[in-house]
Parts: sequence; structure tokens; C-alpha cells
Amino acid sequence: MKAEHYSFTPIGYVAHEHSAVPRHWSVSDCEGKIIINQEYANGLRDISPGDIIVVLFCFHKSPPFTKERLIATPPHLGIERGVFSTCSPVRPNPLGLSYVEVIDIQDNVIYARRLDMLDGTPVLDIKPYIPYAPHEQ
Amino acid sequence: MKAEHYSFTPIGYVAHEHSAVPRHWSVSDCEGKIIINQEYANGLRDISPGDIIVVLFCFHKSPPFTKERLIATPPHLGIERGVFSTCSPVRPNPLGLSYVEVIDIQDNVIYARRLDMLDGTPVLDIKPYIPYAPHEQ
Repeated sequence: MKAEHYSFTPIGYVAHEHSAVPRHWSVSDCEGKIIINQEYANGLRDISPGDIIVVLFCFHKSPPFTKERLIATPPHLGIERGVFSTCSPVRPNPLGLSYVEVIDIQDNVIYARRLDMLDGTPVLDIKPYIPYAPHEQ
Repeated sequence: MKAEHYSFTPIGYVAHEHSAVPRHWSVSDCEGKIIINQEYANGLRDISPGDIIVVLFCFHKSPPFTKERLIATPPHLGIERGVFSTCSPVRPNPLGLSYVEVIDIQDNVIYARRLDMLDGTPVLDIKPYIPYAPHEQ
């Protein structure tokens, strides 16, 4: 196992006024903003209202991962699962992934729905959502 | 904009013998292994052959991002796009996301199909694939 580290600087952050957010984007109606650093605004130019985007972010409030967390119990399932089969925010690398709906976009601000990130969450990347489909041979 | 950094240590890496890989998992039939650090093997226990998993990884061979890369030209499109609407490996944070099919899993090794990562690619996280679906009110 290589022991290198990779360091990332947020490209922006999530901002909203909800005191709590649902456990997962798939059950969320929360609306808020994704505010991208002005220097990257031009990279957003092809995102449009109605798009689904992938947001990669850091679970910046999670406690440190410990070996006991290799098995997690998702609250909506109530049964134990290996952490890599869950969306637990406590994982070896605290990386989060959500699919959100774009309501509007103005310059460097994405107005989005289905947020499940805490206010202030650091955003590391935005990607287009390309659903999985079996490969046609 | 907050200026903090977040540092991640790979949980494993991709291993295969293909000299080249397709540009994207959606057009790939490449098979290979995702070798997870033994200390995390138990976190894989609920992944089964046939599953689709999300692999988050680092584009460790990408050149540094520069402002000119805010607009990219995906080779299969041939037209310019804002980088956050592309899967370009040259992006502000060199994070990659692929959906791969699990062929088999043995202890800490996932045998997978549809790889689009280079041999040796550092893997940062594995998550279950949960397709986007409109939220039922």
C-alpha cells in the first residue's frame, strides 16, 4: 500500500438556512446555494436550470474514522453494513457525493434542490450526472 | 472563500494490465482489480458480484490545473464545455468518479469491469451506486 497523501482545496461551499438536512439527497427537498469561488465561475457556464449535477464534498464535521466504523448501521435500514456499502459520513476518507437539481444559476452561484449537506460544507468538485447504463456491445 | 485544505490518503489502488483505457467508464469493457488496503477489507463485506459501485479516485497523472482549463473540449464531443460539465481529468481538484461493475470480490480485492482509470490510480472511496430519481412528494 502506497502511503501518499493528496490534498484538495475547496472550490466553493454550500450555503443554506436549514437547521437540519435530511440524511440523503434522495429524500431531500432542501433548497440552498452552492457558491463557487469566483475564479472558477466560467467553468459553470454550461450548467443549466433543470440539470442534475454531481457534487463532491467534504464531510468536514465528521469525527475521525476509527476501525469500529468499518461496519455502519444506516438509520433508515437498522441493519449493519460494510461502510463502503453505505453513505455514512464517517468513512476512511470523509468524501461525500450528492446528486442535486439545479434550480437556477447566476454567475458563480448555483441555486439547488435536494441538498443533504450541512451549511458551510466545502465543495471539492462538480461533475455532470451520467446515469449508469449497461454497455452496448 | 475559505482557504483550507483537505488531505486524503488512498484506501487502495487500481491494478490492471491494459496499456490504454477508454476515455470513460460508460464506453469501457476493461477489466482489472481494485485492491483495497487490508485494514479496510471488512468494509467491503456487503459488496457482491453484479453490484455497481461508485469509485472515487485521484487523477494522479494529470498536469496541474490552469485557468485555461476552465473550458475543456471533450474529445468525443469536439466542442467546448465548462470544465464542471465535463469529465476532464484536468480540473481544479483532480478527483475522478467512475461507476464500475463488480465481477467478483475476494477479501480485499474487487475484480471489476468498465474501468477507465490508469493502472496504479489511487482510490479514495467506494460508495453504493444509487441512481438519481425524482423525489416522490
